Amino acid sequence: MPRFKLTLEYHGGPFSGWQRQADAPSVQGALEEALARIAPEAGPVTGAGRTDAGVHALGQVAHVDVARAWDPFRLAAALNHHLKRWPIAVTSAQEAETDFHARFDAVERLYRYRIRDRRAPLTVEKGLAWRHHGPLDEAAMAEGAAHLVGHHDFTTFRAAQCQALSPVKTLDAVTVERSGDEIAVTARARSFLHNQVRSIVGTLAQVGAGRWPPARVGEALAACDRAACGPVAPPQGLYLVAVRYPERADG
Amino acid sequence: MPRFKLTLEYHGGPFSGWQRQADAPSVQGALEEALARIAPEAGPVTGAGRTDAGVHALGQVAHVDVARAWDPFRLAAALNHHLKRWPIAVTSAQEAETDFHARFDAVERLYRYRIRDRRAPLTVEKGLAWRHHGPLDEAAMAEGAAHLVGHHDFTTFRAAQCQALSPVKTLDAVTVERSGDEIAVTARARSFLHNQVRSIVGTLAQVGAGRWPPARVGEALAACDRAACGPVAPPQGLYLVAVRYPERADG
Repeated sequence: MPRFKLTLEYHGGPFSGWQRQADAPSVQGALEEALARIAPEAGPVTGAGRTDAGVHALGQVAHVDVARAWDPFRLAAALNHHLKRWPIAVTSAQEAETDFHARFDAVERLYRYRIRDRRAPLTVEKGLAWRHHGPLDEAAMAEGAAHLVGHHDFTTFRAAQCQALSPVKTLDAVTVERSGDEIAVTARARSFLHNQVRSIVGTLAQVGAGRWPPARVGEALAACDRAACGPVAPPQGLYLVAVRYPERADG
Repeated sequence: MPRFKLTLEYHGGPFSGWQRQADAPSVQGALEEALARIAPEAGPVTGAGRTDAGVHALGQVAHVDVARAWDPFRLAAALNHHLKRWPIAVTSAQEAETDFHARFDAVERLYRYRIRDRRAPLTVEKGLAWRHHGPLDEAAMAEGAAHLVGHHDFTTFRAAQCQALSPVKTLDAVTVERSGDEIAVTARARSFLHNQVRSIVGTLAQVGAGRWPPARVGEALAACDRAACGPVAPPQGLYLVAVRYPERADG
């Protein structure tokens, strides 16, 4: 069966998360229902990242096997047609090698977290960023973030229900950038632990608000203790921006 | 009575427009209801621009008279509290001269229109931009836009129901800029006619899609005929970004 690589964009608001669930809408479930309409023999949809409830994606990647050789362009259009009732869009589809695996082949994941530090509630961007009531010092946040880059045991920044075999990960980069009242925290790694980005952002917000000195982020990491983490930032600010794969020697 | 200048942000989606109406939600109506809760003797709210149904604002300006001398900061917070059920936020409040007029004193209005030219439907930004199915040539659009800058009779780009006394306006600037699949059309003038920006954008989209040569925008303008206009662009891409006032010699 031909395998397709799908690039997906979605608003996380209405979903219990990426992963299919029996009794709640999920991105995977909505995609599989749309596929069932056009390709009843299609296999399950496998995503690169299992985003949580409320988390958005601009460039999630998934793979799926379908019984016949679709024109990729028509496959995307047909899926988008059947996804109309959901805020999910297939932004690109391409035929992949039959052994391509969206999750295991990924060599880099890029997440962005959007904070607006202002007193007024969000209107146009409600649900698209975290409104932080008090002002944040982005330079202090960047100083705190620098403690996290590298190969570490991230037990402090890992959800209790995280299923990863090891808490040791390599965080390639964390940047903090301000533009007006928006602060964007961008994190890049081969893979992340469950809630890792939101745990990091919530901790950096403690630093930005002046409640923690930047060095305490390094101490929290070293503690390898979930209790040392700041409060986890809410889901609506988080975006899975992109997933990168190696160039195929044969592709 | 002290007069206050309010800077407002809102999502135009749920409203029939800025202007108060008897039987439909409006931004002005929602603001006046919120004011009635905290300052029952407040006067009407006068806005700088009467945005249409579905049009957003990032920096609408309004003035209102209230009976007592509020701390501006508390006034904004109290209004935001009572506006909770609506996507309207007071982003700043300040006491103004008692003769300050949000509409008549404005010397410049800045509008931005956001287009995404892509096949996939919008998800995260649904309702926040116009998704244009076919690709747009932004350089051709900019060439077409150049014909509109200056002092002209804009009858072609004016809604039939426009109440302005004269169709002659000075358009100070129109720029067309692409970033990824987003094209932003920005227009700056002392004042605009009803539907002028959306009429211009719809016309420029004809050029961008290759259906009109850029020079036809100049011909449409010269025709002074509403029938010469392209289709009016939909409201959800339009933002009233800012309103500028002269510096007060005494302020």
